[in-house]
Amino acid sequence: MTITAAVIGASGYAGGELFRLLANHPDVNLVGAYDIKNAGQPLHRVHPNLRGLVDLTIAEPDYAKIGKAADVVFTATPHGIAMKFVPKLLEGGAKVVDLSADYRFDDPKVFERHYVKHESPHLKAVYGLPELYRDEIKGAELVANPGCYPTAAVLGLAPLVKGHLVDLGHIVIDAKSGTSGAGAAPGEITHHPTCGSNVRAYAVTTHRHGPEIDQELSKLAGREIKAFFTPHLIPIVRGILSTMHVFAREPMFKERVLKLYQEFYRGERFVRVLEDLPQVNFVAGSNYCDVGVECDAEGKRLVVVSTIDNLIKGASGQAIQNMNLMFGIDEARGLETPPLRP
Amino acid sequence: MTITAAVIGASGYAGGELFRLLANHPDVNLVGAYDIKNAGQPLHRVHPNLRGLVDLTIAEPDYAKIGKAADVVFTATPHGIAMKFVPKLLEGGAKVVDLSADYRFDDPKVFERHYVKHESPHLKAVYGLPELYRDEIKGAELVANPGCYPTAAVLGLAPLVKGHLVDLGHIVIDAKSGTSGAGAAPGEITHHPTCGSNVRAYAVTTHRHGPEIDQELSKLAGREIKAFFTPHLIPIVRGILSTMHVFAREPMFKERVLKLYQEFYRGERFVRVLEDLPQVNFVAGSNYCDVGVECDAEGKRLVVVSTIDNLIKGASGQAIQNMNLMFGIDEARGLETPPLRP
Amino acid sequence: MTITAAVIGASGYAGGELFRLLANHPDVNLVGAYDIKNAGQPLHRVHPNLRGLVDLTIAEPDYAKIGKAADVVFTATPHGIAMKFVPKLLEGGAKVVDLSADYRFDDPKVFERHYVKHESPHLKAVYGLPELYRDEIKGAELVANPGCYPTAAVLGLAPLVKGHLVDLGHIVIDAKSGTSGAGAAPGEITHHPTCGSNVRAYAVTTHRHGPEIDQELSKLAGREIKAFFTPHLIPIVRGILSTMHVFAREPMFKERVLKLYQEFYRGERFVRVLEDLPQVNFVAGSNYCDVGVECDAEGKRLVVVSTIDNLIKGASGQAIQNMNLMFGIDEARGLETPPLRP
Amino acid sequence: MTITAAVIGASGYAGGELFRLLANHPDVNLVGAYDIKNAGQPLHRVHPNLRGLVDLTIAEPDYAKIGKAADVVFTATPHGIAMKFVPKLLEGGAKVVDLSADYRFDDPKVFERHYVKHESPHLKAVYGLPELYRDEIKGAELVANPGCYPTAAVLGLAPLVKGHLVDLGHIVIDAKSGTSGAGAAPGEITHHPTCGSNVRAYAVTTHRHGPEIDQELSKLAGREIKAFFTPHLIPIVRGILSTMHVFAREPMFKERVLKLYQEFYRGERFVRVLEDLPQVNFVAGSNYCDVGVECDAEGKRLVVVSTIDNLIKGASGQAIQNMNLMFGIDEARGLETPPLRP
Repeated sequence: MTITAAVIGASGYAGGELFRLLANHPDVNLVGAYDIKNAGQPLHRVHPNLRGLVDLTIAEPDYAKIGKAADVVFTATPHGIAMKFVPKLLEGGAKVVDLSADYRFDDPKVFERHYVKHESPHLKAVYGLPELYRDEIKGAELVANPGCYPTAAVLGLAPLVKGHLVDLGHIVIDAKSGTSGAGAAPGEITHHPTCGSNVRAYAVTTHRHGPEIDQELSKLAGREIKAFFTPHLIPIVRGILSTMHVFAREPMFKERVLKLYQEFYRGERFVRVLEDLPQVNFVAGSNYCDVGVECDAEGKRLVVVSTIDNLIKGASGQAIQNMNLMFGIDEARGLETPPLRP
Repeated sequence: MTITAAVIGASGYAGGELFRLLANHPDVNLVGAYDIKNAGQPLHRVHPNLRGLVDLTIAEPDYAKIGKAADVVFTATPHGIAMKFVPKLLEGGAKVVDLSADYRFDDPKVFERHYVKHESPHLKAVYGLPELYRDEIKGAELVANPGCYPTAAVLGLAPLVKGHLVDLGHIVIDAKSGTSGAGAAPGEITHHPTCGSNVRAYAVTTHRHGPEIDQELSKLAGREIKAFFTPHLIPIVRGILSTMHVFAREPMFKERVLKLYQEFYRGERFVRVLEDLPQVNFVAGSNYCDVGVECDAEGKRLVVVSTIDNLIKGASGQAIQNMNLMFGIDEARGLETPPLRP
Repeated sequence: MTITAAVIGASGYAGGELFRLLANHPDVNLVGAYDIKNAGQPLHRVHPNLRGLVDLTIAEPDYAKIGKAADVVFTATPHGIAMKFVPKLLEGGAKVVDLSADYRFDDPKVFERHYVKHESPHLKAVYGLPELYRDEIKGAELVANPGCYPTAAVLGLAPLVKGHLVDLGHIVIDAKSGTSGAGAAPGEITHHPTCGSNVRAYAVTTHRHGPEIDQELSKLAGREIKAFFTPHLIPIVRGILSTMHVFAREPMFKERVLKLYQEFYRGERFVRVLEDLPQVNFVAGSNYCDVGVECDAEGKRLVVVSTIDNLIKGASGQAIQNMNLMFGIDEARGLETPPLRP
Repeated sequence: MTITAAVIGASGYAGGELFRLLANHPDVNLVGAYDIKNAGQPLHRVHPNLRGLVDLTIAEPDYAKIGKAADVVFTATPHGIAMKFVPKLLEGGAKVVDLSADYRFDDPKVFERHYVKHESPHLKAVYGLPELYRDEIKGAELVANPGCYPTAAVLGLAPLVKGHLVDLGHIVIDAKSGTSGAGAAPGEITHHPTCGSNVRAYAVTTHRHGPEIDQELSKLAGREIKAFFTPHLIPIVRGILSTMHVFAREPMFKERVLKLYQEFYRGERFVRVLEDLPQVNFVAGSNYCDVGVECDAEGKRLVVVSTIDNLIKGASGQAIQNMNLMFGIDEARGLETPPLRP
């Protein structure tokens, strides 16, 4: 099978990473790179790592045409943009994986509270976390690719939350992200002299990935959960390490928790449950999410650590994993590159 | 007044930083640099930044002699070492600021549970956190200089814990430290290819600074507290950022909390309460501890962020602050260098 | 075709990278991971990124057996080790790619001057720089994989030196390397607090890659060349950027030089000639060597910049490229992963 | 004596660093912080490290008034700006230290070739490199503070060039700079995801510090020199390491060269000649320039390495050193902070 694929939002980091990964996908034929910015530029002027690998020129998008020409369209635009043209893409016949937040919320009102007014609230998407929604994704026309922080946090907490094994009222998620999560547009926060030898917490109680995490944890638990999510920016380029501080409802020790996780993720291609705690460079450059857990001596407190490459499992890799499922091919196709360490 | 000062443990990072800061202290005359390692080497061979600034040669220590020759001795040795010779230093007549953990615990049994058997458990020291114990420090012969993580965490939490304003059973401390906290001895964890583009959590429920934090928070609260402390290693050289996740006992909003902090730290020379959250490079290179706080929309959850330079306020700067108090001179003497940013 | 492959020196960075790259090589079957250090450990304990990808346990090497069992053996041991057992591997029938310096010098006396006494000086190897020695490599039983600095420098200079277009008596090579080039053993030079926010020059006139560069440039020029090579350590993990300062024998301008390079490297799979200057993250994570050049306004001075991932094109990737040639398969097999940027 | 000082260009890094250093200068009274950007903001909103240390609000500059109110004015504006108002400052009676390039060139035509049309070409300034022009600086009303790269390169080469000991036609200067040299304005080149794990050469034959270096080396040699200068950007925040590749006119060995340097810089407060090669963190955070040299075995090739903190000796520290000289006070006043390492 050959899947023709197009990317809208080709200039950004998620866009670049889609091309990087799809360039070697054995079943994909890249047919279009679209962006308003940089239109007319060869793709490798914007992503010089791709020189000689992807021979496309960035063009201004004509959504109706794209939806007809491509089997799948990846929309890697800033939040609030894709919702304007995804209906047209679907009408053309394409399947769509949207990497923005536009379709991640089951309830458009929640989206509107944290983002902007929705322009296609009637469209229903499947939340693209394959480890939780594989079957739904297989049949979907529109997949909402999860946020980077939610991917790490939800995969890290799912077994405990689903089993109601921890105090659901005191879930603290303290996440540390590399700077590529901030995107390709320069700004003061990612200016190297400011951030290169620094750490900061930001949006500590208000980050928009908080309600997304809450939605998914609530669905897992079968009741409403408000987790306490705080992100930090650290001076690495790629990777998220998410530390989850939770409290056992009754004493629990590592052996039992590990077994729980191993069973929950048995057979998963991209979640590895470790005996020790994972570090960012166990997964950087790959589509893996590594998870580990420690318990204190009293079995009261649990620390779960999960880690992903924010541009791969946290964005473009997961989008391709979703595409593979949507087209009925091997879920790991095009995503086999092992992590880089060192 | 001229204070004659000696440093035992001259080769380590805390030792080097003591010399760096004392080199320009207007009231201090450096009279000795001692270490078993590197004995016979000029100090600037080990700390090349100090060339031309401190003209001492590292010598093997003769404790009885040092205790007589110096008005103050800084012991910057690994844990479990100073306790062997501090009694001799005190007998000689010197005041001592110990930068190791040896005298930080009010109850030697707690020390022994987390470190090693104590060899001078009868000696009583004052815990050298000037913002909490200024008066006791002024009269002390032996000051136990606090750990780096406890300094950041306790200063960040003190106003809330003392006032019992938060749920004392659910205090989560998620700290991020630069690599200089690991000391001067190379090892796998601080090997640049391993850690330079990485983040890791370590000793997540068992770090020895945990019980030290608990001791101080318990004293502040007037009842026993077990906080949940987890440290991380991030790829910066200097600095700790500590994120404290706490829960208000009754709804509290930022304005009130800020006012509480401002009052608590009014007049303090080295604690700055910010309207926004601090970042590591607000304080790096200085003796400041910067503190900020955010509350969520419901006033239920508080996030306190504190930051220090782990080698200054977290070690050698605080030791000099203690020395200044012990000798009745201006607390900020020798510690006026402003933080470096960028 | 299935090639059975073994790696001796499995614990080091070059060893780990060989497994990482070979794990997905469609024609290779990994049959052994050998090392004296860590024998008995599953490979993924030493290289946690490879968990689930390579299911081997590190074993102590039995060279005679390995030489019989494997079609190709990669020897990724420190300098002066492989020369002791490569003869046995060859006797067993295996082809060998040696990643150490042991067989890189045409004249064993030169090796002995800069390294140690040679223990198998009679063995003749092909210098494994495919862009210069492709045909010889195809027929080789033993390939000496080039050093990381020589790979970048020689590929950067080859077109100019071969054509005698620059003053061969004044070639300055100023190279900047990431820390992974120092290997997996921790030490003071790669201790993060020392090197994480630092730059240093080292071995400025004496680095052992200097004579290796000289050998190759001399062969290209047809006469003896002594280039002036100085390496630096910078705080990145992967990558070398080599800046070559050279002087035109007669005025030369960019257009002409670019054309020369494009012709020289026409058809090469892993050398990309750029119109602008390359940066490390154009190639990191890949087997590419990117090359660019600028001339000054008078056409007198040329600055050539080349960049590689030191662990891939500078070590394990090039070793696999050589293996592909030795076994007559597509030179790029297993090496298609595009560079990561950001 | 109290010197009243004002800074124009208070928002930039050089401006911030001037305040940071002057905050503790015992003879200076800070009377004004001026900038068009951020006018109306308290200084510590722009430079949060200075909170509690400098109690000034940024104001729009009124040049005539400033020139009357301050004994000295530091102009830390982008190139081409100070030349518009420095005449007014001088008319008011103030002495001026200009940190931009506007007055660095003896011949305004050279300035205009590399920058813009000069608007006050008649003004003559002294080039503010105290180690070469101390006496002239003492009597100056207007000092042109040197560029960061020229400071490191000229101090590193002066002894050899003045003595005509090296081939003056083949001087290669390969410099590596931290990102703070690029200034406070964010841009793609200093965007962390782009530069945080990267190295690049830039302006390799055309950087505007090249002609400034040439001017100074030519004056030292007594004849026109064109050096070959190439800068690089590396992922550290502060610091420049400059590697100078030069060729002895007759064989020279390290001992002799070191002696030459030691004599040349005897008595200098801020140049340290090392037996080994300096590294950036030997000087970061201080006003030092450290210099070292190595010779090859034949005494033919010399590698000189010099290093500075680009914001201190390369900008604001040197400006204060110049001010001290202009006002007849101790040259090191306010500049005694030792370098930070680690």
